[in-house]
Amino acid sequence: MRARLAADAGLVADHLRAVLADYPAGPVTEAMRYATQGGKRIRAHLVLEGARMHGVAAAAALWPAGAIEAIHAYSLVHDDLPAMDDDALRRGQPTVHVAWDEATAILTGDALQALAFEMVADPRCGAGDVRAELALRLARAAGARGMVLGQARDIAAESAAAPLGLDEITAMQAGKTGALIEWAATAGAVMAGADTAPLADYAQALGLAFQIQDDVIDVTGDAAAAGKAVGKDAAAGKATFVSLLGLEGARARARALVDSACDALSCYGARGDGLRDLARFVISRES
Amino acid sequence: MRARLAADAGLVADHLRAVLADYPAGPVTEAMRYATQGGKRIRAHLVLEGARMHGVAAAAALWPAGAIEAIHAYSLVHDDLPAMDDDALRRGQPTVHVAWDEATAILTGDALQALAFEMVADPRCGAGDVRAELALRLARAAGARGMVLGQARDIAAESAAAPLGLDEITAMQAGKTGALIEWAATAGAVMAGADTAPLADYAQALGLAFQIQDDVIDVTGDAAAAGKAVGKDAAAGKATFVSLLGLEGARARARALVDSACDALSCYGARGDGLRDLARFVISRES
Repeated sequence: MRARLAADAGLVADHLRAVLADYPAGPVTEAMRYATQGGKRIRAHLVLEGARMHGVAAAAALWPAGAIEAIHAYSLVHDDLPAMDDDALRRGQPTVHVAWDEATAILTGDALQALAFEMVADPRCGAGDVRAELALRLARAAGARGMVLGQARDIAAESAAAPLGLDEITAMQAGKTGALIEWAATAGAVMAGADTAPLADYAQALGLAFQIQDDVIDVTGDAAAAGKAVGKDAAAGKATFVSLLGLEGARARARALVDSACDALSCYGARGDGLRDLARFVISRES
Repeated sequence: MRARLAADAGLVADHLRAVLADYPAGPVTEAMRYATQGGKRIRAHLVLEGARMHGVAAAAALWPAGAIEAIHAYSLVHDDLPAMDDDALRRGQPTVHVAWDEATAILTGDALQALAFEMVADPRCGAGDVRAELALRLARAAGARGMVLGQARDIAAESAAAPLGLDEITAMQAGKTGALIEWAATAGAVMAGADTAPLADYAQALGLAFQIQDDVIDVTGDAAAAGKAVGKDAAAGKATFVSLLGLEGARARARALVDSACDALSCYGARGDGLRDLARFVISRES
């Protein structure tokens, strides 16, 4: 699974490089290249694996795979801005507004979002109705009913009188990360004109398990590192799945979600093994 | 022409209100409504008039008309941010980051861009291949080869050693405002499967005339207003069409561009009269 994940990451990196090679020289194009480098590219892998499960050619699936990475990169560039999370480092490198400046970071995020729609709308991605459907679903997942809504709720929670409860944090994460993970997992089914419901169910469970594991790592990862007893979320007094369920409760919940995710793929038989392995990987990872 | 412009503005305002009525309550949705109010909506009028010229139903054309207004609104919200132009007022009202905060303004612009693609990809806009083509062209016009490129060049010009020359300022404006004006003017032709070249030629001339008139108003409008001898661009030492061509030279250039714009519509005969009137209006306006 890890080999396939890494191979897909390489394919998508090459694809993004090729697409951006046609862009005019300048700081925004440079920052777009910079911001789309690195990461595990789990979202792109979901697109490519979902496409394989439906017999969709990789050459076509690379367009939505690149698109979801561009959207993810845009969200990170804007999320890192001083007015948002104010992060100076991302994947060990200076964030875009630190390496360039805030104006370039705003424009780079804006351009990466446009790039995502340019990629799903590209004729090489498929027939017109497929591209329009991918664009429509991507817009809904990325916008103020999906990712942006989750981000707005996350920001509102920071100044709220009481920490979020379990239902609220689940709803917030469903928007912030879940909507785009669902888009990625179902893109191959959309391209093949197949039922998207099994992969949507898989993605909802996977997305939540992914976020719970992030919260687990925020505690256990930092505890293992020298001199840090607790993670940044706990230090900031933010509600997390670990603060609400306890460490073992959170782990148990994540395992149950991974079981649900795997069960949702039953109609795919052995063709779903790649995504089943991915779900297990998501809760086994340490970073 | 003004009556038709106002009527179209009302139709698009109603359409945007109806689309946003389905959005969840919260600051980002409120700010999206706020940012999409007001303005002359020349871009939406271009879409609707171009659709009429090709016999495309207004009910379908309202989707791209709403989309171009959403993109325009997003660009203004982000452009007004402290790290960009740092404007506190827009159309006489507090800008989004003043009325709410910077994080909400960033997210609102992001959500408005997604909304634009949601609207052109909506099945009520047309067949799949039409929607995909509109989305592809919109992404190119909005992104790092279009509007974002123009904005980046505008920002770079502020810290450049020498003011821009005529070719550079023309290229900068072609990206910053021209690309989206061209998208708006050609959307109806795209929807009808017609040749987009005449309307693209019209739009390129119109967009440049529009920007030259903006520069003229920046000087003459402020000179007429009590206590202001020069406009903000001149005060900031920025190159403008007026600083490069002189006031009369700029006016003559704008008139010549309007003539070119009108000529480009010759194949449309009397059906092009609405857009010819619009071109003349653009250089006659005082605000």
